[in-house]
Amino acid sequence: MSDLTARFAQIVGTDNVLTGDAISEDYSHDEELTAPPQQPAYLAKPASAEEVAQLLLAASEHGVPVTARGSGCGLSGAARPLRGGLLISFDRMNAVLEVDTVNQVAVVQPGVTLTELDAATLDAGLRYTVYPGELSSSVGGNVGTNAGGMRAVKYGVARHNVLGLQAVLPTGEIIRTGGKIAKVSTGYDLTQLIIGSEGTLALVTEVIVKLHPRLDDSATLLAPFADFDQVMAAVPKILASGLGPYILEYIDNVSMAALVATQDLELGIPDSIRDSCEAYLVVALENRSASRVLEDVETAGEMLAELGAVDVYVLEGSAARKLIEGREKAFWAAKAAGADDIIDTVVPRAAMPKFLATARGLASAAGGGAAGCGHAGDGNVHMAIVCKDPDKRKQLMADIFALAMELGGAISGEHGVGRAKTPYFLELEDPAKIALMRRIKRSFDPAGILNPGVVFAAEQA
Amino acid sequence: MSDLTARFAQIVGTDNVLTGDAISEDYSHDEELTAPPQQPAYLAKPASAEEVAQLLLAASEHGVPVTARGSGCGLSGAARPLRGGLLISFDRMNAVLEVDTVNQVAVVQPGVTLTELDAATLDAGLRYTVYPGELSSSVGGNVGTNAGGMRAVKYGVARHNVLGLQAVLPTGEIIRTGGKIAKVSTGYDLTQLIIGSEGTLALVTEVIVKLHPRLDDSATLLAPFADFDQVMAAVPKILASGLGPYILEYIDNVSMAALVATQDLELGIPDSIRDSCEAYLVVALENRSASRVLEDVETAGEMLAELGAVDVYVLEGSAARKLIEGREKAFWAAKAAGADDIIDTVVPRAAMPKFLATARGLASAAGGGAAGCGHAGDGNVHMAIVCKDPDKRKQLMADIFALAMELGGAISGEHGVGRAKTPYFLELEDPAKIALMRRIKRSFDPAGILNPGVVFAAEQA
Repeated sequence: MSDLTARFAQIVGTDNVLTGDAISEDYSHDEELTAPPQQPAYLAKPASAEEVAQLLLAASEHGVPVTARGSGCGLSGAARPLRGGLLISFDRMNAVLEVDTVNQVAVVQPGVTLTELDAATLDAGLRYTVYPGELSSSVGGNVGTNAGGMRAVKYGVARHNVLGLQAVLPTGEIIRTGGKIAKVSTGYDLTQLIIGSEGTLALVTEVIVKLHPRLDDSATLLAPFADFDQVMAAVPKILASGLGPYILEYIDNVSMAALVATQDLELGIPDSIRDSCEAYLVVALENRSASRVLEDVETAGEMLAELGAVDVYVLEGSAARKLIEGREKAFWAAKAAGADDIIDTVVPRAAMPKFLATARGLASAAGGGAAGCGHAGDGNVHMAIVCKDPDKRKQLMADIFALAMELGGAISGEHGVGRAKTPYFLELEDPAKIALMRRIKRSFDPAGILNPGVVFAAEQA
Repeated sequence: MSDLTARFAQIVGTDNVLTGDAISEDYSHDEELTAPPQQPAYLAKPASAEEVAQLLLAASEHGVPVTARGSGCGLSGAARPLRGGLLISFDRMNAVLEVDTVNQVAVVQPGVTLTELDAATLDAGLRYTVYPGELSSSVGGNVGTNAGGMRAVKYGVARHNVLGLQAVLPTGEIIRTGGKIAKVSTGYDLTQLIIGSEGTLALVTEVIVKLHPRLDDSATLLAPFADFDQVMAAVPKILASGLGPYILEYIDNVSMAALVATQDLELGIPDSIRDSCEAYLVVALENRSASRVLEDVETAGEMLAELGAVDVYVLEGSAARKLIEGREKAFWAAKAAGADDIIDTVVPRAAMPKFLATARGLASAAGGGAAGCGHAGDGNVHMAIVCKDPDKRKQLMADIFALAMELGGAISGEHGVGRAKTPYFLELEDPAKIALMRRIKRSFDPAGILNPGVVFAAEQA
């Protein structure tokens, strides 16, 4: 046992430090598609913020880079360990500490999964409304990537639903930010700064999340459109109507075909309509009574028809659930279909038609293809990119991201830049902003031990 | 004309630089109650981000501290100039640049007032939903303080409604953050970091705000309660009901009496009820149809009665408007009634009864008094503090803030710490967090020219 391994063992206990081949392969990657797995030198599983602080101090002293890992289902490689590095897994910090119904918050450790949190809040009639599609994802991972998902159109992303943190700085200090409070204007908002920082500023050891009332009366509409631009034109009208959909997704015909095939979906749409449609809009509505939902469904249906939908299908319970679950698994469908990379680029909603058409054109020109679905209400485009040649693909990705930024968007809407998209970010982002972010990074992590290679190139961190 | 005055004049034009007695008294303060006015050495009114950048570079070279000012209606002194300093007023940068109905955003310059923005978005059926009570306040000021107000219980505070910024760093660089996009996970969120930083990190020269549909069908309920604790116990029940009130305020009996007197309010509440009630709850509901509002009013009314309201009044249009306007002017009423200071402390909602009772007890013990109203749904307590002796008052304020923090709250929920509350903040906040914030400050403002004395003591900035 090396000195450092012994030191880690002293902190978290011998059983909770692994090295070399004893570390299971699962810890060598997240779900990012392009990069090869990388075993860390050390895997430690702390049980408290104090242990995390001690681990960071030890790593700091020895110049060992540290990567944090929740459930390992990230899509940008932010949880992929570094060679020679320490991977801190939050497997053991997975308790729901409190469901506080008066303040409508839950206090959880970062390793809690969304499934666990959903179960813990069910009886109180409340829920954490961030649904990034993967229910095995951890709350800590949600904070790290600023996770979004389908319900963000109504409830916002992690940033809007995380009220407070306990976090450990690489210097070993344990701080608390925010609280069980909906608002605060007292100094800089460290909570917001740490959210979405992908393990590069501090390690989160406790999270206070906002809970919303569960509105269990809901309905899902599916509307095929002949023309993609009609779908996009419908989105702002629906959002301006006051109907307040909690899901507003588009699915292109390629993705819908894949979804129907893989999910064994029976949507009742005749082949003639399917064949003539470029894309579908999914509109899910909820309200505090079933009668209101029915009324809203009628209003939304009329609206969709006026906006050019070829037809409008109100999906029955199980079909609706399957469709939504299928949409949530779009990443797995894309992976199974041979996608070489994925994007979750965000653009202003109005720029979606241009972005999609141009991105598809760029993919074709590179000898590949691009298809997908996305959070239409948020301008958040999820696309599977097929392009076998790695050099061409890199150029294609760079061109697509540059296009998004020209249109006023950003590389990632909810996955984060991780290790996979950081090179594009550094190439395309305003150097003044990169320099400013680097100074902010140093103000948290002067030794640069936290997740080098994410947000900044490894040597710059 | 001094060299520096000439330099400023070269940047913004001779007509837009004032010095000495030529600067009107109005620029020497905001609406903070306790500190004496302070004339700045220079007042400059730039017309563009480029001019702001040039001003900051010149100020930097000469070591002149810079304070930004919107409408000057802040309540914590963040816009009060420094002796020998440069005050940058955004009077001339007051254009609504765009109301974009497809993306549901407006792009505005920081000097635009809420009244102007409301007028500009009216025809589109949209609105900026931050209502901090003072409609002459500027959007730039809203960003600086992370303004809140009564509608935050439904729509969130400025932080949740500002999607992007153009900002000038003290080093003269002009950056753009965020955009017309609802979500982004691409590097650190500079938008969120700048919001609420009270002019200490960067000067904001353009703001992209989210717009929400105007739901013009609404109703306001007023419910007197015999017991303050009943009011507080009712709040989480109403929030968990799914009724989604857009206003949920409490008003204590002292404040209600002042409000009725100063606003000439006719609420139709018999004296017998008024005399026996400790506090009132105001619940405003809105929906996309009048019939739904009626239905919601009925549900809310029944709920309030069950929760112990002595009676429930559905206010007619003008009475409701007057009540809300009166509540918005609570600060002016408090000032007129001889308040010596005000607080806008935030605590977890569940801690409000304890906080209010203890704070009142502390005020009595100091030979003074404390009364007020507040954003019940947000745990945001607004209190007028009466305590003539300055030393006793300082101790009382410190005790009240310490109490709030012990209960898991913070000094300010929406006003900011400004110059007035910064000393308490520095005394009471975790030193590790203050040190971290100071490092962040330096990463933006290495020379410490932006608003010294706010968030940090002047000599530490």
